[in-house]
Amino acid sequence: MTQTGIPKPKTAEETSQLIKVALGDEKADLAVINAKIVNVYTGEILEDQSVTVKGEWIAYVGQNAEGSIGPQTDVIDARGQTVIPGLIEGHTHIAWLYSAYEFLKHVIPGGTTTIVTETFEVYPVSGYDGVVDFLESLKEQPIKIFGTAPAMISTSQAARGVPPATLEKLLDRDDVLGLGESYWQAVLQEPDRILPLYEQTLAAGKTLEGHSAGAGDKKLAAYVGCGISSCHEPINADQVLDRLRMGLHIMIREGSIRRDLEEIARIKDKDIDLRRLILSTDGVEPEDLLEKGYLEFVLQKAIDCGFDPVAAIQMATLNVAEHFSLDLLVGGIAPGRYADMVIIPDVQTIKAQWVISKGRVIAREGKILVSPRRHTYANRSLNSVKLLRDLEPADFSLHVEEETGSITVRIIDMVTDLVTAELKTQWPIIEGQLQPDIHQDVAKVSAIDRTNQPGKAFSGLIKGFGLKSGAMACSAAWDTPDIIVVGVDDTDMACAVNRIHALQGGAVVCDKGQILAELPLPVFGIISDLSIEEIAGQLKQIKRAATDLGVCHPDPLLTLITLTGAAIPYLRICEEGLVNLKDGQTRPLVAS
Amino acid sequence: MTQTGIPKPKTAEETSQLIKVALGDEKADLAVINAKIVNVYTGEILEDQSVTVKGEWIAYVGQNAEGSIGPQTDVIDARGQTVIPGLIEGHTHIAWLYSAYEFLKHVIPGGTTTIVTETFEVYPVSGYDGVVDFLESLKEQPIKIFGTAPAMISTSQAARGVPPATLEKLLDRDDVLGLGESYWQAVLQEPDRILPLYEQTLAAGKTLEGHSAGAGDKKLAAYVGCGISSCHEPINADQVLDRLRMGLHIMIREGSIRRDLEEIARIKDKDIDLRRLILSTDGVEPEDLLEKGYLEFVLQKAIDCGFDPVAAIQMATLNVAEHFSLDLLVGGIAPGRYADMVIIPDVQTIKAQWVISKGRVIAREGKILVSPRRHTYANRSLNSVKLLRDLEPADFSLHVEEETGSITVRIIDMVTDLVTAELKTQWPIIEGQLQPDIHQDVAKVSAIDRTNQPGKAFSGLIKGFGLKSGAMACSAAWDTPDIIVVGVDDTDMACAVNRIHALQGGAVVCDKGQILAELPLPVFGIISDLSIEEIAGQLKQIKRAATDLGVCHPDPLLTLITLTGAAIPYLRICEEGLVNLKDGQTRPLVAS
Repeated sequence: MTQTGIPKPKTAEETSQLIKVALGDEKADLAVINAKIVNVYTGEILEDQSVTVKGEWIAYVGQNAEGSIGPQTDVIDARGQTVIPGLIEGHTHIAWLYSAYEFLKHVIPGGTTTIVTETFEVYPVSGYDGVVDFLESLKEQPIKIFGTAPAMISTSQAARGVPPATLEKLLDRDDVLGLGESYWQAVLQEPDRILPLYEQTLAAGKTLEGHSAGAGDKKLAAYVGCGISSCHEPINADQVLDRLRMGLHIMIREGSIRRDLEEIARIKDKDIDLRRLILSTDGVEPEDLLEKGYLEFVLQKAIDCGFDPVAAIQMATLNVAEHFSLDLLVGGIAPGRYADMVIIPDVQTIKAQWVISKGRVIAREGKILVSPRRHTYANRSLNSVKLLRDLEPADFSLHVEEETGSITVRIIDMVTDLVTAELKTQWPIIEGQLQPDIHQDVAKVSAIDRTNQPGKAFSGLIKGFGLKSGAMACSAAWDTPDIIVVGVDDTDMACAVNRIHALQGGAVVCDKGQILAELPLPVFGIISDLSIEEIAGQLKQIKRAATDLGVCHPDPLLTLITLTGAAIPYLRICEEGLVNLKDGQTRPLVAS
Repeated sequence: MTQTGIPKPKTAEETSQLIKVALGDEKADLAVINAKIVNVYTGEILEDQSVTVKGEWIAYVGQNAEGSIGPQTDVIDARGQTVIPGLIEGHTHIAWLYSAYEFLKHVIPGGTTTIVTETFEVYPVSGYDGVVDFLESLKEQPIKIFGTAPAMISTSQAARGVPPATLEKLLDRDDVLGLGESYWQAVLQEPDRILPLYEQTLAAGKTLEGHSAGAGDKKLAAYVGCGISSCHEPINADQVLDRLRMGLHIMIREGSIRRDLEEIARIKDKDIDLRRLILSTDGVEPEDLLEKGYLEFVLQKAIDCGFDPVAAIQMATLNVAEHFSLDLLVGGIAPGRYADMVIIPDVQTIKAQWVISKGRVIAREGKILVSPRRHTYANRSLNSVKLLRDLEPADFSLHVEEETGSITVRIIDMVTDLVTAELKTQWPIIEGQLQPDIHQDVAKVSAIDRTNQPGKAFSGLIKGFGLKSGAMACSAAWDTPDIIVVGVDDTDMACAVNRIHALQGGAVVCDKGQILAELPLPVFGIISDLSIEEIAGQLKQIKRAATDLGVCHPDPLLTLITLTGAAIPYLRICEEGLVNLKDGQTRPLVAS
């Protein structure tokens, strides 16, 4: 019996001890007394409550805890304060920029005690072993971190899908709760490839995390009918309502990638059942983490936006736990659950005075009291940029058959900083090559496989990126095994990519053969080993350097790395070519 | 991969077809159009909705179904009517009196399309093979019936517990959702015996169904801390609230064993979150089934008691599905769910005009349109009364060591028709024996093992049963492998038991050597092969005969068979002796 719908429950021996403490036959390790407690099951705020804890678990909640409190019991008198369950983040991306070790230092003081993260960033660049190494880095931490298996919806045909045997090994893990976000277009375009993975996941009793951006009505129904049970993509109250009505759990995003809470909060006036509404970040970048904090910021904002505070707390605790069938373990303050609690001044004020996780006080008044575990990554995780040689400027040439004249090409056209369209246009041929043209804001863009077929590359043209000089590259190209680089000079493009090769991962801005700014990402080529503060500092320099070179987007690095992404409409690039997400097909630069 | 947190999801091929129908690329098999739909996810009633169905599953719900409706599509125009999800019964006892075949004839017209039943009645008398045969009788029926594994909390030491290997085989089945009700006293008294079964169940991703009658505060917390996730035992709003606060799903009982809905309905005024409240019958006897119907009666009554109709419908659909993690399959009208729908006049009137289950119309206007499957039981299921010989009157003698005088004995004292206490009193010895005394309303009571050690028996005395003459026996003695018999005449006691032996199961009333009334129960000795109407008729005769013989309780048979039960306080009997449920220990008739 290896499959478990929920992570490992406590042992019979641990339960035995809980019984004794609940009955008063043994003393608790920890007690929180005289508290107001937010009961997320009933939606009440109960007065004069005590909670007793044995080991990692809650033994008793109520008004008669005295018999279980002895001289060895640590007692927290919470008179005048309010206790809420530890917060649960249901959808985030830890495998980007920071290590769990650094990340947790900034998460723990805010009161988040359970996190579910995607892992798909790791899979295309480091495979199953990489995902396992990443998951191991999340284990034995002061809070609980679960993962979802990579669905590998990729622009790259070679990187698409996960072999069933690999998925089985991942789903077999107690710390993997489901199959991570798999974009709706993919399953409707390639049901034969995707549906068996869905079937396998559901048969293992685990969830299918959704991504239904842009789907509505029939397409949304078709997608939901596949067994999808969540979506974190709706951006307004109407889209949320459409999805709740189909039975999805909806994660309202308020993080670095999008901030939709204020808009979606209008749903509070619709008098509907909110049990399937969830607060989530979908990832927080270092600067936001330092400035705003983590999920506690989202919860506070939900309250400030007018959600009933108890309903908002449910949206960050019980509702998330129920979605993942974790509600016997986390999500509420009740016997048998992990002793995960946050003591706050009052239900309107999400400012953690005490954070208790697995029965241990891990933060007080914004100060962390424990050290996260620093993971030793496997050697191969630290050597994931497998280029066989440094690149030459000539590797970025765009040769065509003719020597002169012009030719119809497909250009990636930036519509917003993230959304792109296909621009078919005539482009001049100069000595048998196509060249960028800064006057028309057209640069070169290349995607270079650094993993599966190292060095396999595709180059094309991009309009509206803004670059006037130099090049910018990154080894964390979304959904692919690629390095992505945009440049107006072949030498700088080679320089940036070669620097990434030397660093075994990173983000680099080059101009005139000089490195202007860089952030090393030695772990899988996507994660730094620096502190959050240092990462934030380097990112600022990268942004400044890119902006100085003309890039006109608010977050140049994000704009760069999403060029390979499989979920944002609609003309993308990978090492195989241009990819039109409307049909998922790969296309060449030259249009026939 | 054999474990599944949820029953088998649809195949990739079925899902492929759903996608096509949702998109309008293929035609639906069935469509319900122009309906009001109760959306249990959001709590809304939506107008002008259509539902399309392919095979057993819902493909699309919304306002744009036309493209999926073709000439071959069966169309139900539900204009002016309301569609609700098929009702889900979360806790019942089918393994008593009627076969699934007969039972379903009376359940289906009311709109119940999913049932979860206990199986523990079968286990002590027919073991694992019996439980499997019983579960097989529930399969391939017009509606879905799931079971819970027997927890085997028994008064009989020999019958207590289920071997882990047996439990594993049962939990491994897709149609077994959890471990059935296991009374709280047992786990607090014998944690070493019970907790490993709990651990095993939770590790399989399945639920622990609870039974917390009489537990409060600390004891309730101790029990809940073991991982219990439901209880169907509270009898008033305060007990319900106590349990909801601990995170339990609470099933409000309104059936033949208890009717608590009216009392518990007061909870509607408390302004609490009702997401964990569930409507249930806990079993309906033949007469009630004929007169009142099944779960639809409970739902109607909940509405009549003042629950908001949509909240009440959630309590009989989504809330139940969520408790069992079945909500991707049933509980709401959404893409990918089983096409289980009930068309009613309006949300206040739970009168099924159409019942649709797994995409098929199975009832209209109270008339069933399909035939349930009649199961062929295994031979050994039909030969479960394994007595090696007929009993003699002398087998019921109560011998003591002395010849005359008196002796202190423990007498089962009926406090209500179900609750008993221990009466310690002096009892006269007549020729070395103890005799019943109808003037003091004291009869003999015997429990005779018919399974494990056939013929092993224990006899004692019972006060307050009412019997003035004859004897009454039944082979369906709760929680044990026993035949239970109460009598004031040894010959009649032997006659009743021997008749049960001859019938291979039944309930029998004898007087002066004559059978006054009987109901054969040939399947496992607990289930009849008669129609519900015939069973109700025989039960009436048994009741009349028992009442004529002086039994003063409203349901003499129920009072008889619960004498061996392990959950109702507090002095019980089994083949091993008297059992004091306060400590679970077995005691002799003669008090030291």
